[in-house]
Amino acid sequence: MNKYDLFKEKMAEIADLRNAVAVLNWDQETYMPLKGTGMRARQIATLSSLSHEKFTTQELFDLTAELLDSADLSEIQMINVKKTKQDLDKLRKFDSSFIKQQSLAISKSFVDWNKAKDEDNFKLFESSLAELIALKKEEADISGYQDHPYDALLDTYEPQMTCAKLDIIFGGLKPELSQLLNKIAQAPQIDDAFLFDQYDIDRQWQFGLTVLKNLGYDFDAGRQDKSSHPFTTSFSSEDVRITTRVNEHDFAEMLWSSIHEGGHAIYEQGLPADQYGLPAGQYLSLSIHESQSRLYENNLGRSKAFWEYHFPILQNNFSQFKSLDINSFYKAINTVKPSLIRTNADELSYHFHVIIRYEIERAIMSGEVDAKDLPELWNSKYDAYLGIKPNSDKVGVLQDIHWSHGSFGYFPTYSLGSLYAAQFMAQYKSDHENAEEQFRSGDYALIKKWLNQHIHSKGKTLSSEELCEELTGSGLNHSAFMLYANSKYGEIYNI
Amino acid sequence: MNKYDLFKEKMAEIADLRNAVAVLNWDQETYMPLKGTGMRARQIATLSSLSHEKFTTQELFDLTAELLDSADLSEIQMINVKKTKQDLDKLRKFDSSFIKQQSLAISKSFVDWNKAKDEDNFKLFESSLAELIALKKEEADISGYQDHPYDALLDTYEPQMTCAKLDIIFGGLKPELSQLLNKIAQAPQIDDAFLFDQYDIDRQWQFGLTVLKNLGYDFDAGRQDKSSHPFTTSFSSEDVRITTRVNEHDFAEMLWSSIHEGGHAIYEQGLPADQYGLPAGQYLSLSIHESQSRLYENNLGRSKAFWEYHFPILQNNFSQFKSLDINSFYKAINTVKPSLIRTNADELSYHFHVIIRYEIERAIMSGEVDAKDLPELWNSKYDAYLGIKPNSDKVGVLQDIHWSHGSFGYFPTYSLGSLYAAQFMAQYKSDHENAEEQFRSGDYALIKKWLNQHIHSKGKTLSSEELCEELTGSGLNHSAFMLYANSKYGEIYNI
Repeated sequence: MNKYDLFKEKMAEIADLRNAVAVLNWDQETYMPLKGTGMRARQIATLSSLSHEKFTTQELFDLTAELLDSADLSEIQMINVKKTKQDLDKLRKFDSSFIKQQSLAISKSFVDWNKAKDEDNFKLFESSLAELIALKKEEADISGYQDHPYDALLDTYEPQMTCAKLDIIFGGLKPELSQLLNKIAQAPQIDDAFLFDQYDIDRQWQFGLTVLKNLGYDFDAGRQDKSSHPFTTSFSSEDVRITTRVNEHDFAEMLWSSIHEGGHAIYEQGLPADQYGLPAGQYLSLSIHESQSRLYENNLGRSKAFWEYHFPILQNNFSQFKSLDINSFYKAINTVKPSLIRTNADELSYHFHVIIRYEIERAIMSGEVDAKDLPELWNSKYDAYLGIKPNSDKVGVLQDIHWSHGSFGYFPTYSLGSLYAAQFMAQYKSDHENAEEQFRSGDYALIKKWLNQHIHSKGKTLSSEELCEELTGSGLNHSAFMLYANSKYGEIYNI
Repeated sequence: MNKYDLFKEKMAEIADLRNAVAVLNWDQETYMPLKGTGMRARQIATLSSLSHEKFTTQELFDLTAELLDSADLSEIQMINVKKTKQDLDKLRKFDSSFIKQQSLAISKSFVDWNKAKDEDNFKLFESSLAELIALKKEEADISGYQDHPYDALLDTYEPQMTCAKLDIIFGGLKPELSQLLNKIAQAPQIDDAFLFDQYDIDRQWQFGLTVLKNLGYDFDAGRQDKSSHPFTTSFSSEDVRITTRVNEHDFAEMLWSSIHEGGHAIYEQGLPADQYGLPAGQYLSLSIHESQSRLYENNLGRSKAFWEYHFPILQNNFSQFKSLDINSFYKAINTVKPSLIRTNADELSYHFHVIIRYEIERAIMSGEVDAKDLPELWNSKYDAYLGIKPNSDKVGVLQDIHWSHGSFGYFPTYSLGSLYAAQFMAQYKSDHENAEEQFRSGDYALIKKWLNQHIHSKGKTLSSEELCEELTGSGLNHSAFMLYANSKYGEIYNI
């Protein structure tokens, strides 16, 4: 076996372990019986630590170093080795005692957060959150950064992302989005009450499957199941599964979550199978991942053209929609209403949920605020940006799981995903004059093919910024999103 | 950590890997999408080889050796170490090249068998079967044996079982069973045609779940799903799953297969959870495993008393049974009719299917017959023992998957399971005067508790023979089975 093949096989074995963990997790969330929890936790821990062990062996490190000096690698092979070496360099900065300490702190923090949320009492979470924050600062110091400690954390989820860049992007987005939200608030409001009528669960499920099939999610390489929190998971690009939940009294809850996860899954199914376990076979970044889910969920799945095709099918399946006109439906599914819970937000006010968390996390990492300051800071920001104030931490600072998992730096990728999605969709439409006609006629194969070709098939062989530049001619910015938002919501709210 | 705890943790980690493989296999048979096959095969192979690697390290071997010399182990701890050392001693006789060679031969053999069965052409399987037989002879030589090379293979599935013992047991069973079968053949035959009417699939499924619950299968520590071949699998004693298949036009196909797998699962759920990964937490042998499935399937699940409780429930669920009397139903589900396919056989003629395979395997291992002789030998034995002759190898020598998997020595455990089941049930009834009354009134908690206490909770801390002696006062023999068979079928066929 030559050295590259050996490298490839070792990476594939690590992927086998990680994917096995993913199967164990998927099973845990979907079908595992109650009493399975305890032993499953230890099975997942054993396999995770084995894959970590295998990834951080001296042997693999030496192999990547040797391969980097080798002249006879193809361009893709060289990228695979380089990116792996970068990951290893970063990982090897942390000794195992630090990793263990952080993992213990996260376990404790998660328990405390759950309790605090249940009892609606931030104090129960405060001390373990403070401990986790201290560890995150240490992590940033160990990783290293140029300008801001938060940059080191951002980089984990979105390589090369920094506060400086985010300040520009969010700084541009905030006033324009505020202005649009204000106009909407002053316009006559939309009636979406009928979406909370009673909708048969099996019919919702079947309709969701129809939509996913139409969008091109490959059910021979995936499946949809139920879980309490929707997610996408991949065991290889040939087995990418999604989950959703169905609410009999909220038509929107399942469908757009299914489409959202479907977008994630179409990305994973489009990754090159022959690059299994290698950077070229992995998703580029969380923002790019999110761009795919948001593009399908919002730019396509909440568009008029999409429903011109699907609304008649919907009417055939649910008597409630029989006498409804498509415009009322289209407006209802695009209702803008600032609310306290991020995961329920509309696609406009959503960004303020993210910006609030970004500003708080940045201030945490620079030491301007401590754990104890968070509830007040949170509430004042919701008041300032969205004009609403949580009357309890449960629907405020305690609502998201992320901090209890130590995921600081994750939130911004949600908004960046939407901005990328707008840029990509604008480009698709500029490349395809008949794009609207495609969507109206139920043809989603072309856009999937285009995304496959320009985004999915490239894996992690370039940076998000390079991908965006290459595909749209400009880097990440908020203009395409605001163009899309002003045009769509200007029409919907008649402003 | 003391040495025993270290040993225990290492064994638990190996169990984690094996159980993860079991989850991957379960998923493959139940929910995995079509295209998942290729990568799943490599994920299973990687994890299997890792668990083998971890089990055969010098470190674990040395640890067991050291612990054996240690004075401060409890009885159970000493058994765990001893049994593990025995497994390791056996395994370490084989070098990795032999294991690889056998594994490759099995892969090839499996492909050829599938093809041969599809095309009903034994010749396509013959050469790879011959190769596998040669390797099995080598395996027996490496393992070592006292009297017969086949003994080495029997021991793999049923520790301490030998040809000498089987010759006595089957030698006693054959004439008595033949006599009973002959009497039945001469008696008026039973009408079971109504079992092949149309039975709603969902109602069958629901009724199966009801029966499993009544029997005491714990659905908080397990679940039932559909797969093309029914099986039981365990990821710990707190997560033991079964599968079944439903046939709209064969009422018997699902129900007794569910009860059978339920029996296996109740055994696995009853293994001591705190002995996870250790011999004391594992099933004793395949025969004992099969004794539990057969006891539930036949001795209980095909008994009159069991149906006195369940038949009224059945009548409430299926209109076909409304006007049927319980005796006709009871007779129909116990119809004896020699047939060509082992998995469809009634509980009497079943043993000849096993005895035929046993005699053939023994002759193969002693070198009396070769692969090429098998179809003719097979057909002549079916003719001699059951009075029927396959008109094609597909329903003859090619019907079972076992040989293509290299599983020579497995078949006898099926019959031994039935004999043990009869001995255990006879003992239960002798210990509990009101056993019949329990079964008639739907009380299956007591027999489960009794099996838990006397069989399940003991894991692998003693031998099958010791267990049987301890529980019934005598070793494995065919008498209890023949008593049961003569009494039950004498009444059913009025002979």
